[in-house]
Amino acid sequence: MQLLKERILKDGTVKPGNILKVDSFLNHQMDIPFINEIGKEFKRRFAGSPITKILTIEASGIGIACIVAQYFGVPVVFAKKAQSLNLDGEMYTTKVQSFTHKKVYDVILSKKFLQPEDHVLIIDDFLANGCALQGLIEIVDTAGATLEGAGIVIEKGFQHGGDALREKGIRVESLAIVDSMSDDSLTFRA
Amino acid sequence: MQLLKERILKDGTVKPGNILKVDSFLNHQMDIPFINEIGKEFKRRFAGSPITKILTIEASGIGIACIVAQYFGVPVVFAKKAQSLNLDGEMYTTKVQSFTHKKVYDVILSKKFLQPEDHVLIIDDFLANGCALQGLIEIVDTAGATLEGAGIVIEKGFQHGGDALREKGIRVESLAIVDSMSDDSLTFRA
Repeated sequence: MQLLKERILKDGTVKPGNILKVDSFLNHQMDIPFINEIGKEFKRRFAGSPITKILTIEASGIGIACIVAQYFGVPVVFAKKAQSLNLDGEMYTTKVQSFTHKKVYDVILSKKFLQPEDHVLIIDDFLANGCALQGLIEIVDTAGATLEGAGIVIEKGFQHGGDALREKGIRVESLAIVDSMSDDSLTFRA
Repeated sequence: MQLLKERILKDGTVKPGNILKVDSFLNHQMDIPFINEIGKEFKRRFAGSPITKILTIEASGIGIACIVAQYFGVPVVFAKKAQSLNLDGEMYTTKVQSFTHKKVYDVILSKKFLQPEDHVLIIDDFLANGCALQGLIEIVDTAGATLEGAGIVIEKGFQHGGDALREKGIRVESLAIVDSMSDDSLTFRA
């Protein structure tokens, strides 16, 4: 997505530890008209898929998923990190390793919001090693729902989580794939 | 907001510990067309306010804030809970007591996303004792920005956080105020 690549080059900054900061428009401050363009692009790419639900994970995926969902006309359901007193009843749970935060956390989703008849599009802001995405896919599988694919805003191609999932036959659509980055350069996959 | 009150009566459930679960449409699964109606109502109530930014706090406020922001044509910025490796530079920080999760957590916001010239509308899904909202207000004050008010989807009137803030002169617009609730009844403030 050309608009996104231009925005990353204009407003993104590379920090030590392979961190690409896009917090001025995507995941701290959020440029809503821009995220609407992202929603249109995901709809274009998944136009042929019979999606009934968008699944994401808190926190930074939620706002993007809500804007994207407007183009699909379906509800959003977001998986929560760690146990919450407000969640009861039967839940899907899985564990996810976060390299960014250097810890393992529980991911939970109420069973009533994901059914075998659902066709799921997973939406998230970043894909790096793929741990969070794998956790969500595991939940979709456990629910017996159909995974239509994953729509990722920015994939860190050099961390290979996306390629590993594609090799398993999972449709991963990333709007920008960064294949290398350093203080003064950033290369997108063609 | 009549539509919201009807939805709470239809789909909300009361759980022990003064918990009102609205997770089928507001803060776990999200009914996006319904949340668009919430956005229109906040815009109607704050139509005369020169809002430049919508502020919320992760996680469940983010999606609502993004949908609401479409009606104001302004960016969303969300405060984060606890320290994140992806946040650097100067930050506003405050501490918030969560009664739901029975702990105190740090709330942080990058200084570059809230400026003295900003006119801020705070958006959140719930207001009970008002601790989270007070933390956000403190950040707005520290930034030297102008607080135009708070737009809350559901206020637990019997926990009095909203009334305390109104007494201080803060404009708190709650779309539904629950004044009492039990297993088999729920009373809204007129």
